[in-house]
Amino acid sequence: MKKYELKEYTPDELKSLSVNQASEYCNEIRRFLIDNVSVTGGHLASNLGVCELSVALIRVFDAPKDKIIYDVGHQSYVHKILTGRCKQFDTIRKLGGLSGFTKMSESEYDAFGCGHSSTSVSAALGYAKAAKLSGEKYNSIAVIGDGAFTGGMVYEGLNNCEEDDNIIIVLNENEMSISKNVGKLSNYFLKIRNQKSYFYLKHKTERILTKLPLVGVPIVRFLETVKKLMRRLLTNSNMFEQLGIKYYGPADGNDLETVEVLLREAKKHKGPSIVHLHTVKGKGYKPAEDNPLTYHSVSGKSLLCNKYEKMSSVLGTKLSDMAEYNPKICAITAAMCEGVGLGEFEKRHPSRFFDVGIAEEHALTFAAGLAAAGYLPCVALYSTFFQRGYDQFIHDVALQNLKIILALDRAGFVGEDGPTHHGVFDVSMLLNVPDTQIFSPVSKKELEKCLLLAEQAECSTVIRYPKIVRADLCEQYFSCDATDEFYSSSQSPEVIIVSYGGLVANALDAAELLQQRGVSAGVFRVVCLKPFNSEYFFEQLEKFSPRMVYILEEGMRVGGFGEHISSVIKGYDFFIKAIEDEFVTFGNTEQLYDRYGFSPEKVADEILNKLGILDNESRFITL
Amino acid sequence: MKKYELKEYTPDELKSLSVNQASEYCNEIRRFLIDNVSVTGGHLASNLGVCELSVALIRVFDAPKDKIIYDVGHQSYVHKILTGRCKQFDTIRKLGGLSGFTKMSESEYDAFGCGHSSTSVSAALGYAKAAKLSGEKYNSIAVIGDGAFTGGMVYEGLNNCEEDDNIIIVLNENEMSISKNVGKLSNYFLKIRNQKSYFYLKHKTERILTKLPLVGVPIVRFLETVKKLMRRLLTNSNMFEQLGIKYYGPADGNDLETVEVLLREAKKHKGPSIVHLHTVKGKGYKPAEDNPLTYHSVSGKSLLCNKYEKMSSVLGTKLSDMAEYNPKICAITAAMCEGVGLGEFEKRHPSRFFDVGIAEEHALTFAAGLAAAGYLPCVALYSTFFQRGYDQFIHDVALQNLKIILALDRAGFVGEDGPTHHGVFDVSMLLNVPDTQIFSPVSKKELEKCLLLAEQAECSTVIRYPKIVRADLCEQYFSCDATDEFYSSSQSPEVIIVSYGGLVANALDAAELLQQRGVSAGVFRVVCLKPFNSEYFFEQLEKFSPRMVYILEEGMRVGGFGEHISSVIKGYDFFIKAIEDEFVTFGNTEQLYDRYGFSPEKVADEILNKLGILDNESRFITL
Repeated sequence: MKKYELKEYTPDELKSLSVNQASEYCNEIRRFLIDNVSVTGGHLASNLGVCELSVALIRVFDAPKDKIIYDVGHQSYVHKILTGRCKQFDTIRKLGGLSGFTKMSESEYDAFGCGHSSTSVSAALGYAKAAKLSGEKYNSIAVIGDGAFTGGMVYEGLNNCEEDDNIIIVLNENEMSISKNVGKLSNYFLKIRNQKSYFYLKHKTERILTKLPLVGVPIVRFLETVKKLMRRLLTNSNMFEQLGIKYYGPADGNDLETVEVLLREAKKHKGPSIVHLHTVKGKGYKPAEDNPLTYHSVSGKSLLCNKYEKMSSVLGTKLSDMAEYNPKICAITAAMCEGVGLGEFEKRHPSRFFDVGIAEEHALTFAAGLAAAGYLPCVALYSTFFQRGYDQFIHDVALQNLKIILALDRAGFVGEDGPTHHGVFDVSMLLNVPDTQIFSPVSKKELEKCLLLAEQAECSTVIRYPKIVRADLCEQYFSCDATDEFYSSSQSPEVIIVSYGGLVANALDAAELLQQRGVSAGVFRVVCLKPFNSEYFFEQLEKFSPRMVYILEEGMRVGGFGEHISSVIKGYDFFIKAIEDEFVTFGNTEQLYDRYGFSPEKVADEILNKLGILDNESRFITL
Repeated sequence: MKKYELKEYTPDELKSLSVNQASEYCNEIRRFLIDNVSVTGGHLASNLGVCELSVALIRVFDAPKDKIIYDVGHQSYVHKILTGRCKQFDTIRKLGGLSGFTKMSESEYDAFGCGHSSTSVSAALGYAKAAKLSGEKYNSIAVIGDGAFTGGMVYEGLNNCEEDDNIIIVLNENEMSISKNVGKLSNYFLKIRNQKSYFYLKHKTERILTKLPLVGVPIVRFLETVKKLMRRLLTNSNMFEQLGIKYYGPADGNDLETVEVLLREAKKHKGPSIVHLHTVKGKGYKPAEDNPLTYHSVSGKSLLCNKYEKMSSVLGTKLSDMAEYNPKICAITAAMCEGVGLGEFEKRHPSRFFDVGIAEEHALTFAAGLAAAGYLPCVALYSTFFQRGYDQFIHDVALQNLKIILALDRAGFVGEDGPTHHGVFDVSMLLNVPDTQIFSPVSKKELEKCLLLAEQAECSTVIRYPKIVRADLCEQYFSCDATDEFYSSSQSPEVIIVSYGGLVANALDAAELLQQRGVSAGVFRVVCLKPFNSEYFFEQLEKFSPRMVYILEEGMRVGGFGEHISSVIKGYDFFIKAIEDEFVTFGNTEQLYDRYGFSPEKVADEILNKLGILDNESRFITL
């Protein structure tokens, strides 16, 4: 089927359109998005909702001179289309193509890159303060959803706005971040919206008060006092106004004209302002409007066939089962209930389920509080987002020896989401935390076993696993008992490949390839990264005395598991294959495996190469 | 001089005192604090301010059943005195003594431990939700200063309070966190306080409105509308009330009776509430009232003599000098302006100085925004607090290849502040971040040189250094040129000690001791931890072929620098001396060096021991 072709406008051309023409263009963009994103995969619903807003921002402001910063960035597709990237749109989230988020190196129209939530206000404030320092005249605009607005950084940023900081915060409320929105703020936004008449009344009353001369008469003396009080209340009736931030709205964010009027107002205002819009997620696409959660992000093609199984659903089911007999088990998500598979837990144990919003820091310390009160919370996060709660895990959980379960999903490469989302730091950042054990299960059964071990443990347990695993992996080679194991088809393997996580599958395939090429290889796969059962490992080494130990790791080399264990292997030639000192790009996982040398073929080739050229006299490898 | 002896009361006895007696007791506590803290060292001013509050909390609530959580915890001295720890007070912050913060393992009255800021609301919410789940009846109270209130976690926590969460947040506003307070929030608090009359008026008007029958007359029809609006405004006139949190105050927090009345009110209220108190920091001690910043924390005895120099002042002076010729240089602190030595910068370049409040996350992303706009910000933090901004450094700075300077003060052991404050994770958490260079200078001149190198670098630079360094260290042994260097008094050292940071001094002393005992030893000291000049290092090893390489590291062993470089040393016996898998306790640095085996004597002993007993056939060291 031929895809819908979208007429392209330069920003200047877009500005020259009438409001009606531009509105119509928004609908055309929606058609284009629906046609394309269902093929490329990516975030659909949120982008359908922001067509008018993205068009208005280009028309009202003067990008790239004015800095437009999309928070999280998954709702920047329309922005990309409007800023010269329409032609490449079918490369989005593909190796070498457009990023699924904004990216500074991709376009001068992307004033700041992102992927993690709630950074836009801080970044925009950086630009705003810089403008004050340099004397340049430009606007800094942070476009942020109500979901991202729950992140504490937003509040820290707002707290730092000064009267003369020229920053505009566009609050795009679509009542639906990735999971449904939670908390007092979202209630508050709803309340504001429901008080449209109230705001109208407010403005009207304000005008009347100005005209009303009240002097003399006794009852009127009281009214004078009231008038004084009202003045104060009126200028302070909104949380943002109380913090000294000019407030515009709430308004229909899918009405282009309204959006443009408000943005122009905010542009005129000298000082920080908030433009509060309400948009419909999935706007213009019935299935997405009805099920924004389903259409939040769509996959280009499904990776899930019989060969693979999804780890997140295992977490949800097993944890729910455990919570049946263990009344102390709770589950916490940071606005990713479905993503981490806790939907089932929420249904089965609603009172013990907590969605704290996009607030990983709070999630960890809140969990520590629950643990201090005798509960066993499981905090389920994506590996990459856990980086936000690192200090809280060290300071509030581990240091106090409070026991929680930290389930880190999306460990290792995540594919199309790219550098901001790969879970490649968790092992190197967590190995150094005392009073913590770390598991890396690679099958459904093993994840279940790890959860049980975590329940029985004396300390906190981190369980990190990829999104999907090869279904037969454990059954075929290992006992699935969550213990480190050695597998070799040969009695005397010349090479031992040590691995954990998703790469265990590649290690096994590489061993097979090596066997075919006449080199016998075994796989030592590690489930418990910490504390590492070094005794068993050394036993295997002594038993086989391999020519080479090859450590294969889907994480950063420096500070990782390979360096950790290699520092105590003496007398063996070993080699660490991990992510060298660079950020991992986006592309599908197979492509990334190939690119970083983790595919079975590349691993086998490298081992052969090393065995052939390895100079046993060489004592050093240059870092 | 004999110190003031304080009469001790049990919590129950304290409750039985009259308000006047209890008030008088507050003054006695103050006298005790002034006498003691000036000897023991620690936080004086903040504790003088909270005497009434701490006494009121014990009298109104039923601890330890009710959970009293002090944020940051440095203002918990009075709480400690009131809960059975008065006798041990002179051991505070000493090895084996009382912690300077709250600590769960120290007392059942410490419902949650702390040290880093802004965690109390999350932790108290954990207790509150747990109480709902278990059906237990207790109150959760978070006591938090206006400084800590600027941290985003507080907002994330507030956002998660539900209507029936029994949590009381005591906002202790003393207009002075560690540095002066900043931002919109503190203005807002001030505004609330200045509107006492307004709140009075509000209540009065509310009463009158109830009594006022307005019907019929034309002007009165308008007034009816006004009345309706006012009702709405009145119940929503405060930021907290708008978020659905019951608000009490503002009130004089140094008036015991008032504090108790408000706390009892809040206790009666079912659901989340805020009690807003205003206290005088340094209350009752004239010098501290006048100079709360000076008396925020007092040292027991000065460590600074000619032998040592303070690195923070070097940062402030050099950065200010550089900012004279480089108009792009900015400085950012997270509420620790004096602590990190930026006071001079603030004076000399006020427009380029930013105190963002206790908001490390925002500090890093804000810096990224400034860098994106062409500025060169230096973010100066304590090493331990940087843990809060880890994700932002990876995601917003390094990944986008934005160039900033990250100055990490208090790297390594910090002494009396203890486990929550030691800077022992920074190396292992930062080595794995791409596009980053890391320096570890050990002298004034070297820190200056590192700043210049950072200015010229293509990527971000981390400069991490201890609070104080031995003044003669570089001059005596090294070139001070911020390059890795090898020092040996012998032509053929048998042992090479590799070290960086504060321990370089110990390494040199240990080499001296070894020499005295007939073993020649050299010191390879590393300034640039990343990228490590492995070539030069290997040259030295090849040149001397030492019997042993001993890596000495004041940081976590796992994932640290030692493991990193040892993974590429082959053919040499090496040994890593670092912090094994545990949290470091408190005590002065000398004591900690001794305890963890880092003192020159212990290092020399261990090396002798290893050399004597080292079995060259042994291929493994058990992890």
